[in-house]
This record gives sequence, structure tokens and C-alpha cells, in this order.
Amino acid sequence: MRDIQELQILIQKAVEKINFPPYPAKLYEPISYILDLGGKRMRPALLLMTCDLFDGDIEKAMPPALAIEVFHNFTLMHDDIMDKAPLRRGKTTVHERWNANTAILSGDVMLIEGYKLIMQVEDHLLRTILNIFNDTAVGVCEGQQLDMEFEQRDDVNISEYIEMIRLKTAVVLGGALKIGALVGGADMKDANLLLEFGENLGLAFQLQDDILDVYGDPEKFGKQVGGDILSNKKTYLLIKALELADAKNKTELDNWLAASQYDATEKVKAVTSIYNAVNVRQHAETEMHKYADKAFAALDELALAPEKKEYLRSFADSLMVREN
Amino acid sequence: MRDIQELQILIQKAVEKINFPPYPAKLYEPISYILDLGGKRMRPALLLMTCDLFDGDIEKAMPPALAIEVFHNFTLMHDDIMDKAPLRRGKTTVHERWNANTAILSGDVMLIEGYKLIMQVEDHLLRTILNIFNDTAVGVCEGQQLDMEFEQRDDVNISEYIEMIRLKTAVVLGGALKIGALVGGADMKDANLLLEFGENLGLAFQLQDDILDVYGDPEKFGKQVGGDILSNKKTYLLIKALELADAKNKTELDNWLAASQYDATEKVKAVTSIYNAVNVRQHAETEMHKYADKAFAALDELALAPEKKEYLRSFADSLMVREN
Repeated sequence: MRDIQELQILIQKAVEKINFPPYPAKLYEPISYILDLGGKRMRPALLLMTCDLFDGDIEKAMPPALAIEVFHNFTLMHDDIMDKAPLRRGKTTVHERWNANTAILSGDVMLIEGYKLIMQVEDHLLRTILNIFNDTAVGVCEGQQLDMEFEQRDDVNISEYIEMIRLKTAVVLGGALKIGALVGGADMKDANLLLEFGENLGLAFQLQDDILDVYGDPEKFGKQVGGDILSNKKTYLLIKALELADAKNKTELDNWLAASQYDATEKVKAVTSIYNAVNVRQHAETEMHKYADKAFAALDELALAPEKKEYLRSFADSLMVREN
Repeated sequence: MRDIQELQILIQKAVEKINFPPYPAKLYEPISYILDLGGKRMRPALLLMTCDLFDGDIEKAMPPALAIEVFHNFTLMHDDIMDKAPLRRGKTTVHERWNANTAILSGDVMLIEGYKLIMQVEDHLLRTILNIFNDTAVGVCEGQQLDMEFEQRDDVNISEYIEMIRLKTAVVLGGALKIGALVGGADMKDANLLLEFGENLGLAFQLQDDILDVYGDPEKFGKQVGGDILSNKKTYLLIKALELADAKNKTELDNWLAASQYDATEKVKAVTSIYNAVNVRQHAETEMHKYADKAFAALDELALAPEKKEYLRSFADSLMVREN
């Protein structure tokens, strides 16, 4: 079993070696640019990992792994236009550095390049893996659409939120794990269990992210603590707090959401104390553990040697206790 | 042999029957909307036609034909954002009716839906046809990129222009004909000859469009005569006229290109008379015939019965003498 860091390094090296055509330069440069911004390469590395789990040849898993990474970066390029984001991983976004038209068109080509990479699997897996890739790709688009719609709505409920994050973030993880397993020689039952493992882990991970935004250790958490509160982001915590709050807390929360001028520290502190009053952290952690438990249940069913399951479990554990 | 009108009707009916998911409505409604705007459905109908030429089952050619139509409309949806076009086939464009974000994301899903449709070919053709589809899709994006770049450049030459229109418009026609032939049972040699036929016919057709914009019969030509002149569009005629003009004509042409205020009729008349002075129409027609001849040469080589070649030839002729 190779460890995940080793696989991340392999992916990084392979990403650096992808060659796009030199002409038209303005079409292909933004693709190299966004891929060069870095990132943890976690999705493609996990695809290699599930291939490796079944003693598959990870060389064969490299093109679909790169397909997942190129696809993921395509969604970032287009999402950044839609979100009017100025920065991505601390660097200027493509639509800001070039312009929106370039980001649209380079993104389109990236999606096609993703298909060219995913197609490099062996003939007997081609249709199956393309179907998984299609489902993943459609899911991410649907998730992005729901995310944008939810920004405009005041009545989003928990089950809608869970479905949105499942589509927007969890299906890619599940799809990557399933594809890697199939390339590695897994049967469809195990491949589907890994999809289930990945999707539920993805959900748990996203819920943990929502929790850490408010309750994380500022030293360890990569982003600004309270960032979601300041941007009124409809996270699990906010949606649940609005659901649980009594009249007084609800009014106070609504006022903070409506406020156009405020002291940032004061807003974070006030909203957090409403969250505390309604015990939202506990609810979120219960929900997070629910999905983590589902992930582990899928893992238990895998037809793999105990030490391999243990490896997967400890890897998942390491993701889930990033900081607390 | 079914005639092309019959095939166009078959496509139209099949397009009307495509069902997209109901949710999220705002993601899928724009797809149905743009597909419902109509159009001649020429590309997919020609895909059915080449399948039919080889006595193939046109039912089997329907999914890839719809893939080509969905893909084509995806490019229109994204191109309209980039071109800030208010209207498409006389109706409000998607980004105007909804917004740019919706047009970006619905377009992305359309591209994926195109892949889902093209994948419905039989296993033994899957990889080959996906490769053609990928090449076509990349070509169209590269063509759109060049088209946008050329708007900002004053030094575009004829060979660059021909390469741009080849990528932007001709490769889809060539790709459609090749895919239809393969589904119909053609061997790779005939399929490639049909690609060559389609690409060269597409080039000839685009050059004819450039000519008709200036010299077409206003009663028969679908668009405003002189529209390209008024928008300073870098067509074959303008690029060639700039190349051929003497100092006096060149200065006059440059002045018209730079003019911000002018009488439209006067501008069309003045630019046309410069075109006439340098004989640009004759050059354009020579170039157009060059590509039409290449198309017919490819056709001659096809291993098809003479009456089938004659059918293709008369169809191509009917396209090429739309009006003159």
C-alpha cells in the first residue's frame, strides 16, 4: 500500500507534465495556469489509492485520475466567474487575469480535455467509467445551480442543503473512488461500496468544514474563522439555527443577516452565541457522525483484507479530525 | 435514399422528445428553450443522411445526431454570452432571458448531455466516435477563440481566416458526416472521405455566406445585406480587399473601418465599391470553388454507387447555389 502523500506527489508530477497545444495560446494558457495553482490533488490521489487497494496498476489509473483533476479545475474556473471570485488559492482567478470570455471558453475546452483523459481507460471499462464520469459531472453542475439558487432563498431546509453539498462536493469524491477501484480490478459491488464510502465521507467532511468555520482553531483552520458567518453563507449551522431558534434568537439572527454595516468581530461573536444557545454545534456533529458512520459501514462490507480496510479507516479518520 | 427534408423532420421530432430532468428547473429549462428555438437541424440531418447512404439503420444514428445538435446549441449558448448577443433566431438569448451564470452552467450541462448522447453508439464504435466528437468539440472552441482574437487584430491574413472558419464551422459538418457514415457501416476510408467532403463543403458554404452578405439578393438572403460591412466583420472579402487595395483605396477602407458615425447605406455602398474596384468578389468565388471542388473530389473517391454520389453532389450543389 502506497501512502496518500506518495500518491499526491505522483499526481502533482503528472499534472506538471500534461501538455496542452501551444495554439491558440490564450485558449490553453489559462488551463495550465489554473492547474499550476496547486491544491492538495486529493481527489486524483484517492483514485490512485483505490486502484492500489485492489492491487491494480496505478499507471493505468493515472489518466482517469488526471481527468478528475482537470474536471475539478474546470468547475473551479467556471464557478469563479459565477461567484465573481477575485482570488483562487491566493492568486488572481482566470476571469480576472484574462477575462470572463476566456474563462468560459478555456473552461469548455478543459471539460473536453477531461473526457479525452477519462477515455484512456481500457476498452472493457470505457462505457462504465464514462457513465460514472457523466453522472459525476452532471451532479456537480446541479449542485452549483442549487448553491446559487439557495443564496437567493430564505427557506432552504436541511435536507435540501445536504442534497446540494452531496451533488456539489461529495459525488466527485465518490466517483473518483469508484473509478479507481474499477481500474484496479474491483467488482461492481466493491466499486459501489467505495462510491458510498466516498460520498458519505465527502458529506461528513463538508459538515466538518461548516463546523470548523465557527469553532475551529484559528491557528490550524486554513480559512478565516467566522468567514461563513460574515458572508451569511447558508451552512448547516445557519440553516439549523434558524430552524431551532426561539422568537427572540430568530429575530436577532435575522437582524444580523440583514445588517449592512457592522463590526466583524462583534457579528461573529453574536451569531456564535446564538448558535451556542440553540446547541447547533452538537446537531451538526451528530449529523457529521451520521455520514461518517455510513461511510465506515460501507467500508466494512468491502471484500478486502482487514489491513486494507484499516488503512482506509485510518485515512478517513485522519481527514475527520483535522482540528477540533 | 430518404431526402434531406424528411431527415430534418425526423430530427425535429426527436429533438422535441428529448427529456431533461425537471430539477433543478433553472438548470435544464434554458436547454429546452434554446433547442426549441428551431433551426434547420442540418448537421444532425446530414449525419442521418450519411448513415442512410451506407444502408445503415438511421434509428441507430439518431442519438449521435442529437449529440451533434445538442453540442451545436451548447456552443451557441456560450458564444452568445461571449458575443453579448441579445437575440438568437429572433428570440431573446439565454443569458439575456435568464442571466450569464445560468447560460454558463446550463451550457456546461449541455456539453455533458452531448457526451451522454454520443455514447449511445454501439460498443465497437464507441472509442472511435468519441474521438471524432472530441476533435470536433475542441476544434469549435479553438475556432471561437481565434474568431474573438481576430476581432482585436488588424493583421489577420487569408490563411488564418480560412483556418478559423474551418475550425469554427466546418469541422462540425465534417465530423457529423463521418460519424453518420461509421454508424451506417462505412469503412474508415469512406468515413474520412466524407469528413473531407463535409469540411470542404463547410468552408465553401461559409465563403459563399461572406459573398452573399455583400452581393446577395436582399429578397432571398436571410440576413441584412451589408451586415458584415456595417459591423466591420473580418470576412474573406474585407481581409482580401485590404490585401489587394492600392494606397488610395486602402486609406478609404481604413477610414470607413474607423468611422464611428456614418450613414449605413452610404457605408455599405462605399465599401462595396472598393470591393468591386479590387475585384474581391471574383477572388472570393475562386476560393469558394476551390473548396467546393475539393469536396467533390473527395466525393468521387467514395466507394458508393453512382446514383448515391449523384445524390450527394446534387445536395451539395443545392447548398452552394442558395442565391446568386
